[in-house]
Amino acid sequence: MSRLVDISGVVFGGEFVVIAGPCSVESEEQIDEIAKAVKLSGAQMLRGGVFKPRTSPYSFQGLGEPGLRFLRNAGNKYGLPIVTELLDPRDFELVARFTDMVQIGSRNMQNHPLLEQIGRSKIPILLKRGMNSTVEEWLNSARFVESFGNENIVLCERGIRTFETSTRNTLDLSSIPVAKGLSDYPVITDPSHGTGVAGLVAPLSIASKAVGADGIMIEVHSNPENALSDGAQALKTEELGRLVVQVNNLSAYQYPARCS
Amino acid sequence: MSRLVDISGVVFGGEFVVIAGPCSVESEEQIDEIAKAVKLSGAQMLRGGVFKPRTSPYSFQGLGEPGLRFLRNAGNKYGLPIVTELLDPRDFELVARFTDMVQIGSRNMQNHPLLEQIGRSKIPILLKRGMNSTVEEWLNSARFVESFGNENIVLCERGIRTFETSTRNTLDLSSIPVAKGLSDYPVITDPSHGTGVAGLVAPLSIASKAVGADGIMIEVHSNPENALSDGAQALKTEELGRLVVQVNNLSAYQYPARCS
Amino acid sequence: MSRLVDISGVVFGGEFVVIAGPCSVESEEQIDEIAKAVKLSGAQMLRGGVFKPRTSPYSFQGLGEPGLRFLRNAGNKYGLPIVTELLDPRDFELVARFTDMVQIGSRNMQNHPLLEQIGRSKIPILLKRGMNSTVEEWLNSARFVESFGNENIVLCERGIRTFETSTRNTLDLSSIPVAKGLSDYPVITDPSHGTGVAGLVAPLSIASKAVGADGIMIEVHSNPENALSDGAQALKTEELGRLVVQVNNLSAYQYPARCS
Amino acid sequence: MSRLVDISGVVFGGEFVVIAGPCSVESEEQIDEIAKAVKLSGAQMLRGGVFKPRTSPYSFQGLGEPGLRFLRNAGNKYGLPIVTELLDPRDFELVARFTDMVQIGSRNMQNHPLLEQIGRSKIPILLKRGMNSTVEEWLNSARFVESFGNENIVLCERGIRTFETSTRNTLDLSSIPVAKGLSDYPVITDPSHGTGVAGLVAPLSIASKAVGADGIMIEVHSNPENALSDGAQALKTEELGRLVVQVNNLSAYQYPARCS
Repeated sequence: MSRLVDISGVVFGGEFVVIAGPCSVESEEQIDEIAKAVKLSGAQMLRGGVFKPRTSPYSFQGLGEPGLRFLRNAGNKYGLPIVTELLDPRDFELVARFTDMVQIGSRNMQNHPLLEQIGRSKIPILLKRGMNSTVEEWLNSARFVESFGNENIVLCERGIRTFETSTRNTLDLSSIPVAKGLSDYPVITDPSHGTGVAGLVAPLSIASKAVGADGIMIEVHSNPENALSDGAQALKTEELGRLVVQVNNLSAYQYPARCS
Repeated sequence: MSRLVDISGVVFGGEFVVIAGPCSVESEEQIDEIAKAVKLSGAQMLRGGVFKPRTSPYSFQGLGEPGLRFLRNAGNKYGLPIVTELLDPRDFELVARFTDMVQIGSRNMQNHPLLEQIGRSKIPILLKRGMNSTVEEWLNSARFVESFGNENIVLCERGIRTFETSTRNTLDLSSIPVAKGLSDYPVITDPSHGTGVAGLVAPLSIASKAVGADGIMIEVHSNPENALSDGAQALKTEELGRLVVQVNNLSAYQYPARCS
Repeated sequence: MSRLVDISGVVFGGEFVVIAGPCSVESEEQIDEIAKAVKLSGAQMLRGGVFKPRTSPYSFQGLGEPGLRFLRNAGNKYGLPIVTELLDPRDFELVARFTDMVQIGSRNMQNHPLLEQIGRSKIPILLKRGMNSTVEEWLNSARFVESFGNENIVLCERGIRTFETSTRNTLDLSSIPVAKGLSDYPVITDPSHGTGVAGLVAPLSIASKAVGADGIMIEVHSNPENALSDGAQALKTEELGRLVVQVNNLSAYQYPARCS
Repeated sequence: MSRLVDISGVVFGGEFVVIAGPCSVESEEQIDEIAKAVKLSGAQMLRGGVFKPRTSPYSFQGLGEPGLRFLRNAGNKYGLPIVTELLDPRDFELVARFTDMVQIGSRNMQNHPLLEQIGRSKIPILLKRGMNSTVEEWLNSARFVESFGNENIVLCERGIRTFETSTRNTLDLSSIPVAKGLSDYPVITDPSHGTGVAGLVAPLSIASKAVGADGIMIEVHSNPENALSDGAQALKTEELGRLVVQVNNLSAYQYPARCS
């Protein structure tokens, strides 16, 4: 049994949670439109990046604080708890004021100052697996957070780096039962980053539920072709609803997908 | 749609096929006992190794021709088509005389003399992905076989080698929709070798069906602790029946798991 | 030709630079003793960690500011410029006050807030390659730093993560000529982390010079068995002198390149 | 100390051996012209493929027996022992009649029927490391050969498969001292396949000697642009002489280790 992590009424470990939203919050209108579609699809939480890990100071850096407000307002309007990524420990208080859950991205899984900052609060954390990290290292990072007192931890498998090039990363679905066998953290997957290919998101989402994950996080965009980041892996808003139905239908069965 | 590959009435691409059996045929009694359990479980085909890829001339080398006879007899007795691995092109005629399907193992995915030999016949081939091979290379090996005239090809994802050590290999379930998007070969998975851990076989089998695989191949042993090879990843015969029920129940749903 | 990066008179790109020192500054006496041995060996710079990337709040965390003072004093006493790692952007001003060069570790190669902070200063940066990062991503991180105005960048190859387990990482010596072909940054290697095995440090140091690296960084300890971190890969102080002679003689003398 | 493996007077383990030649023997004139250049460069052995691991039945398959004769004649004419790859155990007697040393390629490192065949003879074997094999597995394959009585074994590191894409493979130079620490087999490297880039062959050849390898194998072609296979990684014949001088001078002279 997983521990339960409650995000304003959405309970990881107690229900199969679908988080959806754009890679980046691009404007008030964009996030409002997408949040509406997310709500209509039956997904339970809204995601959106406002601080982006930039590889160039000239690439899109995220909207920062205004983006946080847009995301918060959209979440409130449609009754969706929100999650957004934190990159810099100096932004913690700002981010924590707006969001319901803080995401730690793959590149920061071992950013210990950032982990300690969150560990010293009670804000729920979505801890992505490093793309080059073993399951054991991933769990160690979770335990590091927890050692400072914060027990509200959800893990997210997002693919590891291998020699295979037909997908952006290799989504390691074995990591779900392995992590569950070694801990009681809820574990979700991110098939969007895990594959990097929109056409692979649906089958890997279904497989994630089948293998025993507690939820999925899906990138969705009202206009993927013009997304400011990661458009190639984003579902269209109209595709999201069908996916949510598919994964919900899958759960009618009582199969013991957990590794005993 | 997959092409259909018919193995004495078991049709890959037309039904979800469960192949089960021991890593090695160890004796006439052993394979008879396991074959009976395989039949009772509802699985459709019987596997068993008689030529083993030896890393030492002192390790168990397989029973060779007597093993082929034991496997053939057990298959006949219980009405299960059989599949066994071929390692040496000089054994082709012997093996082809006994088996319904020839397996090419991970280490031989690019053994072109072996592939050509099978390609020049019509015997169905189960072509495992190399543990270090891309999906593209895997498909190229299949096309190489087909170029000699043999169209009876089924692919098998069996895990790739990565830095992760909690599993023996990393079962790459994304490869199923990727391979299906690029070809019409039926594709099955081998969760036993793909994880190397008996406790992970059930969840990854279910996920394999969910992601759209056409079948699974499962190692099973009446006494895994005393198996001559690969006992740690083998299910007990009594566990197999429950797994077959689980994967069969999963199929009642109509989800479009294939990558379009 | 490399650009020249001058660290208080030690010029990367102009001479073959040996940086040596302990993984962690453990006490004033320890760093003084090791610094003396580093100076006597002929190495040109002193390294020592004072903020450690902790995987547990209970493991050794580094001495922090007192450690910086000990390191600074030892560097001054023996005429060795110093380099130490920065983990948290909030520590930047403190660290920059003491050190001659700031190291960014493998886990932080894409920690953009940290990189931007250093980029907005002129302090020389030693940028380690991420253990899962391509050469292209490594160069992008260097260019990201430079885009804020800081040109004083030295790269450090420290091994990548692969399936091989006989070494802690796989030191990728091809990355030296590749990085030099694509940029003019000086590039050094870290054979201590790159192999994780003290007995492999000498041959890989010599190979690093042979392949065209601009220097090496070596972990050394007066008492490796009792080191607070990474003892297994540290050379003894008495081994360092012989290594410095070997790498210096490489262009004029026959050296025993075999691993002893 | 390595064991000594004597190939018609060229002694692995006793001298630094340079093997050079084309990927494929293409014609009598081609191999004669290249063999002459190889001899003039000071290299000691001639290589050339006559059976190629084909990924398509329509790609160049090697000249087969006529190629063996051309290679043998060129070796005799210029006093160079020859090495060529064996793919199929059924070709063993033919190949062994012509060649001085049999190469087992990366894809066949665990092809046990092939290894056993060579192990039952005394013909020297050049055993390449599998691109996905650990050093331990590589040594196990060598010990497997030796267990049948053949002690004339030379190992060849040829790069492993990693996530890095700027090189075709990652040449693992740490494997040289690791393999030497665990066995007494001579070990050479193949910087041509190990990097896949002609411009990287020289620095990695020099690094190979520096790290303690017993030799190198270099692809060379009189006209790389028109080579029937692997032209991108082949040196021109006129570049080979300079490289041989550089590696021979390594213990007595300053060499330009930078990649041009």
